[in-house]
Amino acid sequence: MSRRMLSEAEGYDLLERYGIPVPEYKIVNNADEAIRIAEKIGYPVVAKIVSPQVVHKSDVGGVITGIKNKEEVENAFETIMQNVRKKAPDVDISGIIIEKEMPSGLELIIGGKTDSSFGKVITFGLGGKLVELLKDVSLRVLPIEMDEIEKMIREIKGYVLIKGYRGEPPRDEKVLVETIDKVSKLFYESNKLIEFDINPLMLYEKGVCAVDARIYETDEMILPGEIIEKEISSRIFYPESIAVIGASSDPDKVGYAVFRNLLDFPGELYAVNPKRKEILGHEVYPSLASIPGGVDLAVITIPAPIVPEVMEEAGKKGVKLAVVISAGFKETGEEGRILENKVLRIAQRYGIRMIGPNCLGIILPHKKINATFDPASPKPGRLAFISQSGATITTVVDRSLQEDFGFSAIISVGNQADIGFDEFLKFVSDDADTKSIILYIEEIKNGRAFMKVIGEVAEKKPVVALKSGASKRGQKAASSHTGALAGSYEVYMAAFKQAKVITANSLKEAFQVGELLASEDHLKGNRAIIITNAGGFSVLASDYAERYGIEVIDLPKKLIEELSSFLTPEWSHENPMDLVGDARADRYARVFDLMIRNQDMWDVAFVVAVPSAVLDARHLAKEVVRFSNHTQKMIVGCLLGGNSMKGGVLVLREASIPNFPELEEAFKTVGMHWKCKKVYD
Amino acid sequence: MSRRMLSEAEGYDLLERYGIPVPEYKIVNNADEAIRIAEKIGYPVVAKIVSPQVVHKSDVGGVITGIKNKEEVENAFETIMQNVRKKAPDVDISGIIIEKEMPSGLELIIGGKTDSSFGKVITFGLGGKLVELLKDVSLRVLPIEMDEIEKMIREIKGYVLIKGYRGEPPRDEKVLVETIDKVSKLFYESNKLIEFDINPLMLYEKGVCAVDARIYETDEMILPGEIIEKEISSRIFYPESIAVIGASSDPDKVGYAVFRNLLDFPGELYAVNPKRKEILGHEVYPSLASIPGGVDLAVITIPAPIVPEVMEEAGKKGVKLAVVISAGFKETGEEGRILENKVLRIAQRYGIRMIGPNCLGIILPHKKINATFDPASPKPGRLAFISQSGATITTVVDRSLQEDFGFSAIISVGNQADIGFDEFLKFVSDDADTKSIILYIEEIKNGRAFMKVIGEVAEKKPVVALKSGASKRGQKAASSHTGALAGSYEVYMAAFKQAKVITANSLKEAFQVGELLASEDHLKGNRAIIITNAGGFSVLASDYAERYGIEVIDLPKKLIEELSSFLTPEWSHENPMDLVGDARADRYARVFDLMIRNQDMWDVAFVVAVPSAVLDARHLAKEVVRFSNHTQKMIVGCLLGGNSMKGGVLVLREASIPNFPELEEAFKTVGMHWKCKKVYD
Repeated sequence: MSRRMLSEAEGYDLLERYGIPVPEYKIVNNADEAIRIAEKIGYPVVAKIVSPQVVHKSDVGGVITGIKNKEEVENAFETIMQNVRKKAPDVDISGIIIEKEMPSGLELIIGGKTDSSFGKVITFGLGGKLVELLKDVSLRVLPIEMDEIEKMIREIKGYVLIKGYRGEPPRDEKVLVETIDKVSKLFYESNKLIEFDINPLMLYEKGVCAVDARIYETDEMILPGEIIEKEISSRIFYPESIAVIGASSDPDKVGYAVFRNLLDFPGELYAVNPKRKEILGHEVYPSLASIPGGVDLAVITIPAPIVPEVMEEAGKKGVKLAVVISAGFKETGEEGRILENKVLRIAQRYGIRMIGPNCLGIILPHKKINATFDPASPKPGRLAFISQSGATITTVVDRSLQEDFGFSAIISVGNQADIGFDEFLKFVSDDADTKSIILYIEEIKNGRAFMKVIGEVAEKKPVVALKSGASKRGQKAASSHTGALAGSYEVYMAAFKQAKVITANSLKEAFQVGELLASEDHLKGNRAIIITNAGGFSVLASDYAERYGIEVIDLPKKLIEELSSFLTPEWSHENPMDLVGDARADRYARVFDLMIRNQDMWDVAFVVAVPSAVLDARHLAKEVVRFSNHTQKMIVGCLLGGNSMKGGVLVLREASIPNFPELEEAFKTVGMHWKCKKVYD
Repeated sequence: MSRRMLSEAEGYDLLERYGIPVPEYKIVNNADEAIRIAEKIGYPVVAKIVSPQVVHKSDVGGVITGIKNKEEVENAFETIMQNVRKKAPDVDISGIIIEKEMPSGLELIIGGKTDSSFGKVITFGLGGKLVELLKDVSLRVLPIEMDEIEKMIREIKGYVLIKGYRGEPPRDEKVLVETIDKVSKLFYESNKLIEFDINPLMLYEKGVCAVDARIYETDEMILPGEIIEKEISSRIFYPESIAVIGASSDPDKVGYAVFRNLLDFPGELYAVNPKRKEILGHEVYPSLASIPGGVDLAVITIPAPIVPEVMEEAGKKGVKLAVVISAGFKETGEEGRILENKVLRIAQRYGIRMIGPNCLGIILPHKKINATFDPASPKPGRLAFISQSGATITTVVDRSLQEDFGFSAIISVGNQADIGFDEFLKFVSDDADTKSIILYIEEIKNGRAFMKVIGEVAEKKPVVALKSGASKRGQKAASSHTGALAGSYEVYMAAFKQAKVITANSLKEAFQVGELLASEDHLKGNRAIIITNAGGFSVLASDYAERYGIEVIDLPKKLIEELSSFLTPEWSHENPMDLVGDARADRYARVFDLMIRNQDMWDVAFVVAVPSAVLDARHLAKEVVRFSNHTQKMIVGCLLGGNSMKGGVLVLREASIPNFPELEEAFKTVGMHWKCKKVYD
């Protein structure tokens, strides 16, 4: 796609047409003309080089400001010409622009770019020369509403400068909102513009002025990616009969692992393999056609080249869903891509929906379906995990068995030839067993369709996303500030935020917050109480609370008195409530009772305990369960230590009360949850 | 301590005396005088209010800049007077300062404050009005050397502005270094000055100028805290005979737990308790005096009021070290403080060194000494843990038994009446079993003594510190920028950095990096190779590497060809080396062989593996051990998952090869280690 930078004059004209103020200006070609125009506009004026090849005008000495009279105009003209000829001898000079020097205001930047996944995005932040140093910008995927524009203004650290910093009067936030709105519309509606920076946009006590603009357009028309909403019936994910094509009795084969994993399936299970008679005690059919009953789901584990043939058979058999585990398609190059398209066309002709190819498969533990070659089968639970990497699935499943958590659905999306993230999201969003959704994403093709669906899903169920590919290695140099500030990863993060998706930095973080969201839904605020038997962890808890945005409430005097009436005199007399080292479970229990009666004053309780000779972890955990049962609040266990706490940890797990073996993670996870609530409720 | 702000004139004079350029100025009391002075100095000039009560002059409209002629001087004088009378009617006005307006330069800040633990500190950063918004400052405990000043300049993000940003010429870094040095000396050597901001310090292409200064002094003399170096003999920590005063057979008593924990001690162990005859099969002595042999170490678990009496006895018995576990001293208030001093004086009279009071005790697993009431005994290892919280010790010991790591020494410092952090640090620094040292610190009294010792220790052995008390709750409002920017926590962090101590955010992080430092000492650079069987984790590994400052090297073409000669065609053909999902241990092993032969090209190898049907974790781990044995580099295992990896994890543990069950933690920990190496080597 070829691109062209609008000249400053073209840019100013465009902005003016959309009602965005720009300075009075004129392009001149000699010093006399420059003087004439300057006199007409009125001093002070600015002189700037006009050249299609010069992107950063200051860098070549192409800008002179504060010109106050005729002589200075003349000098400026000559100096700029000399500078540019010296520093950039090969560029074309179209002239010099003489423009009104606007009074200095707060320098902001509004920029836009076209992202390969999400389309047009807009950025806003502190501008001027330091923009890339400050990196104080907010970012949104277009289109956006006014309230979202207000949020993006308030999100930057420099917002204090807009509100009025240190005795300065506040600046014109209202006009700023309107300006961003106008610019967004101008950019979004254009089928020519692909990238721009307005930097600086001067913000005054009254009004704004765009003092410099770099705008890029393309020759080709840009059409926003179509949002095709495919209708998928959840029913196809709940088959009554399953056939494994390529089932094998050789334990080294994928077809063995898949068939073995499906042995618990309560519906009809068929093995298909022309070369075998019997597999794991099951009769083997030579082909799909030879199966006596119907087949809802076909799991295909045969080599790629014969998949088209089998898909054809599946179509004739009336299969509704095919899980193509086989690799050797698009991921291997052009030939594979052609093969993949061929398979897809066959499936579409017969109305078969397809998962994969090149995937691990799908697991629905509540339905006793494990159509993957994962070495293990997870237990049923409330988390759905949709992943673009099979390895993350095997890892998490393995960990789930050790840490004893379960899943409602696990889906390996593979090449997404047919069903993609958006449709899988719809499915788990409707699935009654799913309470929260975790995504591992490497790349999304149609970001706009994804945004639409995920926004709807996140209204119903919490979604946590881990996006990989944040590293800048290999990311190409950007020609605009916005290009540099709004890298692909940053756009994903902004898009997730707009869609109310919580983002995590690691699988562990994703699952910790995912489990918290699945196990409790009572976080109504961030007012915390902390109850512990250790002074050291009181201090650390206060640190972590502040770091992750949790408020440690002040206890009313009356409550402190009540606590003092039964606690030992050494107790901390404040929140965090340190019940001191000789606290047994019954001392915690009495505090819980009081906190149950005063539960209107807090939103979340952290029960922190360290091993001691007198504390029975199991007894404490049972009291925590009772505490939880008698409140409508979130109770978080922090049973710190190792083997001494195991009994207590099991009791909490049984009661679905979250527990964190590391204090920082407890506050971080609750803080992530709260941040999400706060921003989007 | 009462404090007074120097007037602007006094401040300028002080700076000038130390050779720091300031603008020409004069204080005036009426408009005529103002005009006369302005004419003398030469336009443009600045007019500023002079008032002892006005700290932020701009906030009251007390500053007018850019005054270019007589009329403007007159106007400025009147305007400032009116503004200040209106906005701050109650302040005393000493006049108006008329000073030369310096050309605008890069606005920097140099500030200083007196920290309650570490004494005088200095800060440097981007200045101007936005200083508290930018928060781009570096901080050092005084005194400092020139090379450290250079580092503090280069540390700030805004350093690019000093070097010459976007075609601007570089600024006078040399004079800046000299200026910070002069200011540091001025501040450090003064026994009057307690806090100051020079903001802005204008930095030019040539030279600097201090354009505004707020300097506070005190009436009282400040004497730098004395650094008393106490000589401690390590031998006192290796007793040949131990007596437990207050030993008990009641399992609920501390005296029981301590005696039980000491039963394995191979030297002489005595129980002292006038009320008992026999404890756990040991004869009980009614008093220290009645013990037939000598006693090196007395562990005291009796109530506080009778500790002085026992200490007296211990002195007469020739005890060398007393561990006073008993609580009820300084931590309880004034009465306790008096009792503690009494005990200390007795100990000092007899030359007894004392740990505690109010502590958990001390554990030296290699010597089979566990003189604590911890419910468990840790195994021997290479980590020393010195902690200001007993609860962190019981927690970590409990975890160590589950995760199977060991300790060389565990010390609960308690009230530090006699032996403090600095002497414990000296002890573990000389202790042959200790390879790395972890500290949990709440507060340090004599920061300068601590700095001296820890600096020496950290030259010999790596030290990791977790400092609690970062929360701003209750931190009082600061009157200077420096006061606001250099809170107590920030000073600790700077002091640790200066002393080459690695700081951690949680106990888990501290122990992860502590173990890494104890188990390997081969990190010579940050060039990493990553070998994995999972594409998803390749992408995540690249993300984490970038985030934590690890360089993922490019493999030379020749090496890629060699790898391709035996790997399956689907392998990633780059670093991270994804050997793909069907990789067995032998495929990893062949890659290891090649990397052993090419070990000059990298510094650290991350071996990442996820569960698969064909990968035997134990076999892989054995190959990793072989890999490690044949290189001088750091090898890090990342066996991700749960039960499937257990066998492999045990093999790595046995061989002291670090393993991380969560990928992010591996890169974070190695990154922390590297950051430390890089900054201080």
